[in-house]
Amino acid sequence: MTFEFDRDTRLTARGPGSGAGTGTYDADLAPGWVVGGGVNGGYLLAIIGRAVQNELAATGHRDPFSVSAHYLSASVPGPAYVETRVVRTGGRFSTVAATLYQDVDGVPVARIASHATYGDLDRAHDERSDLEAAALGLALPPPDLPPLEECVLSSDAPAEIKKIAPLLDRFGTRLDPATAMWAVGKPSRRGVIQGWFKLADDRPLDPIALLLVVDALPPVTFDLGMPGWAPTLELTAHVRARPAPGWAAVRHQTRTVAGGLFEEDCEVWDSTGRLVAQSRQLALQPRG
Amino acid sequence: MTFEFDRDTRLTARGPGSGAGTGTYDADLAPGWVVGGGVNGGYLLAIIGRAVQNELAATGHRDPFSVSAHYLSASVPGPAYVETRVVRTGGRFSTVAATLYQDVDGVPVARIASHATYGDLDRAHDERSDLEAAALGLALPPPDLPPLEECVLSSDAPAEIKKIAPLLDRFGTRLDPATAMWAVGKPSRRGVIQGWFKLADDRPLDPIALLLVVDALPPVTFDLGMPGWAPTLELTAHVRARPAPGWAAVRHQTRTVAGGLFEEDCEVWDSTGRLVAQSRQLALQPRG
Repeated sequence: MTFEFDRDTRLTARGPGSGAGTGTYDADLAPGWVVGGGVNGGYLLAIIGRAVQNELAATGHRDPFSVSAHYLSASVPGPAYVETRVVRTGGRFSTVAATLYQDVDGVPVARIASHATYGDLDRAHDERSDLEAAALGLALPPPDLPPLEECVLSSDAPAEIKKIAPLLDRFGTRLDPATAMWAVGKPSRRGVIQGWFKLADDRPLDPIALLLVVDALPPVTFDLGMPGWAPTLELTAHVRARPAPGWAAVRHQTRTVAGGLFEEDCEVWDSTGRLVAQSRQLALQPRG
Repeated sequence: MTFEFDRDTRLTARGPGSGAGTGTYDADLAPGWVVGGGVNGGYLLAIIGRAVQNELAATGHRDPFSVSAHYLSASVPGPAYVETRVVRTGGRFSTVAATLYQDVDGVPVARIASHATYGDLDRAHDERSDLEAAALGLALPPPDLPPLEECVLSSDAPAEIKKIAPLLDRFGTRLDPATAMWAVGKPSRRGVIQGWFKLADDRPLDPIALLLVVDALPPVTFDLGMPGWAPTLELTAHVRARPAPGWAAVRHQTRTVAGGLFEEDCEVWDSTGRLVAQSRQLALQPRG
């Protein structure tokens, strides 16, 4: 069987350049990842992540460590392509510039401009550095989530919501009820949304899928009583470890809303409680 | 008088292209900003920030909102140049790709690859959105720092330290003594360094200078008992407001050291207590 995520992030290398430092990869943005006014930013980031991975196939640097993306315009379902250019390679890391485009009336329109630094997460976790880190005891612990069965399945949203957010059906997200009261008109106003996460068809998480996970919960502004789409200006994701199989825990939080903008911090822990990804995005406050 | 920061980030536009969408700006990296094995990353980010500002001069988008930088190789004092390319402009924001190079034996070597999204901070702070944000009460408060006179002037470091870190003389940093005990061999091991910040010659802070401030304290790993240089892999800075005159408060914190890497979060508040900048960098754990 092919999982939805793999099917919908499949790429075709264009021409002979791909893998040689500058490659172009064709994608087809699937309508199932639409939310509100555009295609989900995490899904797009994963497509970019896969293009970079393909371009770096010969280097052994297969894992994203840091991907920073500036969102330029809203993507729509249909053909898209990622142009990649290796800006540095060698040693422990490679860095690639990658831009996602869609042609509009025959004119290329840039959707996302990004840089990605890749390496090998297995090599990063050598015994010595992990022992040192364990001795420090410095590791961000996962949130204290209620058991799965007490959490709210976000794909149980009303049909009129799912019509504008078919994305919800891609995920098995179960939200902590204390951070989901906005769904019944009672936002906590703390600026936190958290819960358990898996893909709906149980596709295992891996470093590329984590690029999706960091943007897979509803905008944290929902919990501030601000419904509506919150367009991302910039999102940087750091993958900190290869995730173990099973449910992930995810927390979104904002601490400062000002000047029409807010930051949304996301952390992802795997089923063993290890922090596997962190991200921060700067987004526009919804014009409610 | 000319302040150090302005003198040392002065740029010369190369050729007629500058300001027309693709410009090249010459800089001279001053030796006073050296720390350990290279030139300070915040100083380099400010030089990039200034090049982007010059390139966007005609747009009215003069302020950095988000700058994400991947550090590719260590810079050295001497000539450098920033190549800029506008990837999107129009509406509230412009985004520019900017790469800092130094020629080594006549060959251009990329030091930093970045994207920067600029706008107008004064326009962002319109009355309506600020009222809404104030009603939420959601604003990260500054740390509770001891009064200035109880803090430790970091430029009072021993001469042998200042020889490898002339950078210290650029700043009037006064560290909270509770987070400076690493200087006397007693790191708190909490992973926090905080204090008051100003430039040594009292140059007022502005949005471009904030790009420097987010990387102006010692690496937070000092507080974990790990001396040594912590090379930055990636740093993203978000400027949230134009700073008011006076002392800033700055906090660096790490929450997870793993796989030979750590994240360093930095927040900067101005003298009125308003959060004016946030950054996160992913850096290599010092090989002590």
